[in-house]
Amino acid sequence: MNFASDNVMGASRPVLEALVAANDGPMPAYGADPLTARVEAAFCGLFEREVAVSLVATGTGANALALSALVPPYGLAVCHAEAHIIDDECGAPEFFMHGAKLAGLPGVGAKLAPDTVAAYLDGLSRSVKQMPPRALSISQVTECGLVYTPDEIRALADVAHARGLAVHMDGARFANALVALGCRPAEITWKAGVDVLTFGATKNGCLAAEAVIFFDPAQAESMPWRRKRSGHTLSKGRLLSAQLDAYLADSHWLANARHANAMAACLSQGLCERPGVRLAWATQANEVFAILPRSLDEALRAAGAVYHPWTPSSLPPDERVAEDEVLVRLVTSFATSPEMIDRLLAVAHGRRVAAE
Amino acid sequence: MNFASDNVMGASRPVLEALVAANDGPMPAYGADPLTARVEAAFCGLFEREVAVSLVATGTGANALALSALVPPYGLAVCHAEAHIIDDECGAPEFFMHGAKLAGLPGVGAKLAPDTVAAYLDGLSRSVKQMPPRALSISQVTECGLVYTPDEIRALADVAHARGLAVHMDGARFANALVALGCRPAEITWKAGVDVLTFGATKNGCLAAEAVIFFDPAQAESMPWRRKRSGHTLSKGRLLSAQLDAYLADSHWLANARHANAMAACLSQGLCERPGVRLAWATQANEVFAILPRSLDEALRAAGAVYHPWTPSSLPPDERVAEDEVLVRLVTSFATSPEMIDRLLAVAHGRRVAAE
Amino acid sequence: MNFASDNVMGASRPVLEALVAANDGPMPAYGADPLTARVEAAFCGLFEREVAVSLVATGTGANALALSALVPPYGLAVCHAEAHIIDDECGAPEFFMHGAKLAGLPGVGAKLAPDTVAAYLDGLSRSVKQMPPRALSISQVTECGLVYTPDEIRALADVAHARGLAVHMDGARFANALVALGCRPAEITWKAGVDVLTFGATKNGCLAAEAVIFFDPAQAESMPWRRKRSGHTLSKGRLLSAQLDAYLADSHWLANARHANAMAACLSQGLCERPGVRLAWATQANEVFAILPRSLDEALRAAGAVYHPWTPSSLPPDERVAEDEVLVRLVTSFATSPEMIDRLLAVAHGRRVAAE
Amino acid sequence: MNFASDNVMGASRPVLEALVAANDGPMPAYGADPLTARVEAAFCGLFEREVAVSLVATGTGANALALSALVPPYGLAVCHAEAHIIDDECGAPEFFMHGAKLAGLPGVGAKLAPDTVAAYLDGLSRSVKQMPPRALSISQVTECGLVYTPDEIRALADVAHARGLAVHMDGARFANALVALGCRPAEITWKAGVDVLTFGATKNGCLAAEAVIFFDPAQAESMPWRRKRSGHTLSKGRLLSAQLDAYLADSHWLANARHANAMAACLSQGLCERPGVRLAWATQANEVFAILPRSLDEALRAAGAVYHPWTPSSLPPDERVAEDEVLVRLVTSFATSPEMIDRLLAVAHGRRVAAE
Repeated sequence: MNFASDNVMGASRPVLEALVAANDGPMPAYGADPLTARVEAAFCGLFEREVAVSLVATGTGANALALSALVPPYGLAVCHAEAHIIDDECGAPEFFMHGAKLAGLPGVGAKLAPDTVAAYLDGLSRSVKQMPPRALSISQVTECGLVYTPDEIRALADVAHARGLAVHMDGARFANALVALGCRPAEITWKAGVDVLTFGATKNGCLAAEAVIFFDPAQAESMPWRRKRSGHTLSKGRLLSAQLDAYLADSHWLANARHANAMAACLSQGLCERPGVRLAWATQANEVFAILPRSLDEALRAAGAVYHPWTPSSLPPDERVAEDEVLVRLVTSFATSPEMIDRLLAVAHGRRVAAE
Repeated sequence: MNFASDNVMGASRPVLEALVAANDGPMPAYGADPLTARVEAAFCGLFEREVAVSLVATGTGANALALSALVPPYGLAVCHAEAHIIDDECGAPEFFMHGAKLAGLPGVGAKLAPDTVAAYLDGLSRSVKQMPPRALSISQVTECGLVYTPDEIRALADVAHARGLAVHMDGARFANALVALGCRPAEITWKAGVDVLTFGATKNGCLAAEAVIFFDPAQAESMPWRRKRSGHTLSKGRLLSAQLDAYLADSHWLANARHANAMAACLSQGLCERPGVRLAWATQANEVFAILPRSLDEALRAAGAVYHPWTPSSLPPDERVAEDEVLVRLVTSFATSPEMIDRLLAVAHGRRVAAE
Repeated sequence: MNFASDNVMGASRPVLEALVAANDGPMPAYGADPLTARVEAAFCGLFEREVAVSLVATGTGANALALSALVPPYGLAVCHAEAHIIDDECGAPEFFMHGAKLAGLPGVGAKLAPDTVAAYLDGLSRSVKQMPPRALSISQVTECGLVYTPDEIRALADVAHARGLAVHMDGARFANALVALGCRPAEITWKAGVDVLTFGATKNGCLAAEAVIFFDPAQAESMPWRRKRSGHTLSKGRLLSAQLDAYLADSHWLANARHANAMAACLSQGLCERPGVRLAWATQANEVFAILPRSLDEALRAAGAVYHPWTPSSLPPDERVAEDEVLVRLVTSFATSPEMIDRLLAVAHGRRVAAE
Repeated sequence: MNFASDNVMGASRPVLEALVAANDGPMPAYGADPLTARVEAAFCGLFEREVAVSLVATGTGANALALSALVPPYGLAVCHAEAHIIDDECGAPEFFMHGAKLAGLPGVGAKLAPDTVAAYLDGLSRSVKQMPPRALSISQVTECGLVYTPDEIRALADVAHARGLAVHMDGARFANALVALGCRPAEITWKAGVDVLTFGATKNGCLAAEAVIFFDPAQAESMPWRRKRSGHTLSKGRLLSAQLDAYLADSHWLANARHANAMAACLSQGLCERPGVRLAWATQANEVFAILPRSLDEALRAAGAVYHPWTPSSLPPDERVAEDEVLVRLVTSFATSPEMIDRLLAVAHGRRVAAE
């Protein structure tokens, strides 16, 4: 019963098989392989326009590379105070941006509101002491499991663009957001004002594969060098392209995300039926953030459930975690089975459970 | 007949199978998986001492990370003028070292001589205008296919250590050097004065897996953060550890290297039997550097052979590439078959060849 | 009536004369001049121990250089959220520290409390996602004009040292704090646990001269190179050393600071006698932070007074700036005359004032 | 008899007096003072077009800032192998350019030839392994005392611009070159293709003042932030502007340079009249590079002459320094008196000399 993260599982079956299938025979190195070309074409199709694609193995690498192309070393990027880029990447963006700074703003559910961003930007000194803001980064899904709608993204992008900032989306769980919204990829990206997307695939079925997508290829001019000099250009590029080729084929990625979201919905609903349990934030994608009685937390862990406690910093103003409660995050993925959910809920509801 | 590089092939069979075998079930993320622990233990055994191991997906990442732990931002690293780190990594070392500089010294066959290094270091100004030298980096196998003997490494390391420099070895083709020398890993690394090794595996049977090995674990203290902030810490760490686990098991890596070297020896010998062909540098590992008549080069390419021209900058003083000649590099690997060699030699010797 | 800052005036008379006196004749370049040696000796005397001294022309340069020697590129430095280094230096520390991050903590009057720092540090994740904290930086005088006592510094340094952090003091107004406390320089620096001091002189009588003082010279080993590579090593080093030589001689710097503090005390007292005026924070050194009725603010400005509005972010919890009030900062310096104070107070109290 | 460098003297009289004159009274900080505005206007007049001006205190800072605005972190700048920026600045350009690389090319007298630059650039790989060249930097006067003519600069700039590189001129001795050529500032800068100039003044009469001049102000957009974050924005900006105001006024700077050049011409001629002495490179500005018999070198030093030995790396192909010879550099400045020259020549020619 591992709900620690969506990166504790390996690859989904079609992705793994693609890796095996692509293994034999020579292919040009450094991304000049035919599979990479196919993946690039697939992304153009997916986003219904020409895009520039850079494949890398990690989300941290992808985010940092994307930001480094948007923000000069003396610039500022704005994000939520709990954004992965500011909180969980050991300063990778600052390293790749050469000392440019991240400013973390507040917002319930790790979601930024246009007014918050506008007020912050408009309040910045125009003095040379102040690093000029150049990018806004938002996370889709947010670090608290919430999904930005196309309108919300559009409103944020308008605030950013009106002030000269580019818009980056950290789409580590892009697929989960997309299927939750039931819209087309273009609608929550460039059509809503996103300039650059970190298209995450590792959490949703790949082993290690992300894509930095520039919707204006001209802005991506420096990416090949940036990728190479950061050591993120794989010599055997097929490792990345084969995964993504299978990931995108036959809507496999969407099926994976739908499954994960459905599992989370079941889990969320089941947990909430347990007295004393409530959600910290709505379950909109593949993560359940629940406030549990400590006794339940102990019972779940005793039964073998694995998951992480979570920070209450972005709770709604009227919500609070009591002394005898704990706020936890449970993550589902393509590999989460209904049996795992049943089992966890059985424990939660005090039903007898067979040993794992 | 692809001899372009040892990175045009995928993974060797056991490595690929290990990837598949390690795919199922949950594992802790970010390198906390049991396979990583096993690989670390294997490296300690291999090198007959405690070592600190950082797994990454690319050689460029591994080299740059290793150097960044040895050289402060205001320092200097010394290497051959054709070293991969100075010539082929788009400035990755300078990026990771934050502006520290690489100085490229001359040497036949891309091999550094102790006297050259000593004279260069002793000739540096002691003024504050001069960045202080802090590391010497050598490539095993060199960029011209030559192998440093334990004594040669020892002599270079003595020059470096006596002047306060640490010694890094770029072992992109470490396995090929090792089996060529027929010695133990410790003998050409820490016992000979190497402080940090980039242990290459990608070119010799993995898909994407390298290890930075610190022989003094205390010097590696910063590596976890450096790796994370450069985006080189894979969340599904099993991708790297599974490859290396199989790579190191049952001397598979040595078998691969022996095969590649043997193929190169055949190729080298066969080519040299062709009149007008001579070696630019001795064939000591898995690369053949040959000076061919242009007509032969054209015939080989017409027959489908793929390989790269090479720079003559490190030729011996009495050697020269004539107008009607070309200097080329042909690389063999674990995946090179005797048939490929036969076929290329047949073309070289003007024998009839069946279509590929 | 310019109270905008203590950097709107030129040099004090003895400093300027020293510049002129040091101008003639040859002197070795790059800080090898005899005046620099004399200044270094003076600092050793001043601090009652051997110290390592690096002279630079700006406080931003001094702070950034000091921090870069304490914090590795993957590290974290902790300071107050309104510290000059985080708020007013356009990312200089992040540039010099190569992407290391600054974390800004809260505290009334821009003053850090040991508990705040301890709680923050102890709450940091031990994960590799978290940049490790390596330095605590405090401002003496704080950005709200408050002075840390020796005991307060000691308590903060104990918190820092116990957790492996070095302690930096931004002493842009070090002299003002020192005379306010009436203690010896050693007592508020190394004896209280400060490892590195930015010894400011520009604001207190020099034209452009600061000194980075390492109390453990061994920690300063990299400073000559760091200074040179940042362009802060003046070729005609006498420019800096002549200023500081005169600044330190005959307690000139202390006299300057005493004068500035006394002027601020007069100004503070006089303003508070005006109904409707109160201090935001106590006047402890050479800055007055007052909450004024808007009408008074307008009258002062109409009469030619120059000063800056200030942020209320670090007000005491029970203090607030009303709609019809404004929070302002007035700074005095060695060059502030009693007549300037009288004139401003006359305006404040509605007395007739002759034209300036 | 100090001929060590043109930075061993203080400021010329008018510059020093201007510093004193500008000292009193308040002025806005951070370069918003009226003197800075006047200096900016003077530069526009001098160069007969609108230019963007950034004042800094050191040549290393000026060069590094200029290059950082031209070359992205993944780029390459090309210069002579003995250029000050590559050889004497402890990696400042690499620090400010965030790891971008400098490539040093050969050329007699530290002078670059268009063919050398073109051949180098055209020979670079187009692969992503190669950092793309983005700037050419030339030194006017060269490090061997030679002056580029307008035509020579034009030819180099054409080579650079045709390949997408911007042109930077390190004008540490710009004034000396200008009066040697007898042309207008515009003719050896933007009219000849220079994009950015480091306008040196420290060596020619200032204490510490240089200006980065962008001939296309649009390219200078980032300079205020770059200057601030490197700690090169003086709070009391008058220190820089007062110096340059006097330096540029009444052609004072040209008079200084003419004097220095004339002194060098006398020295050069006088030395060459001594048998056994010959010039390494022609004396074109204010530096004499002479090959002396060791016995003469000893006699000069015994008599108190101060100067530096120099590297023979850029000697003409047919020139060589014999065992019993030494190559030295003697530098004159605005402060060099005819008596100093006479005295040195007297020693050189074995004439009796009174004690200094």
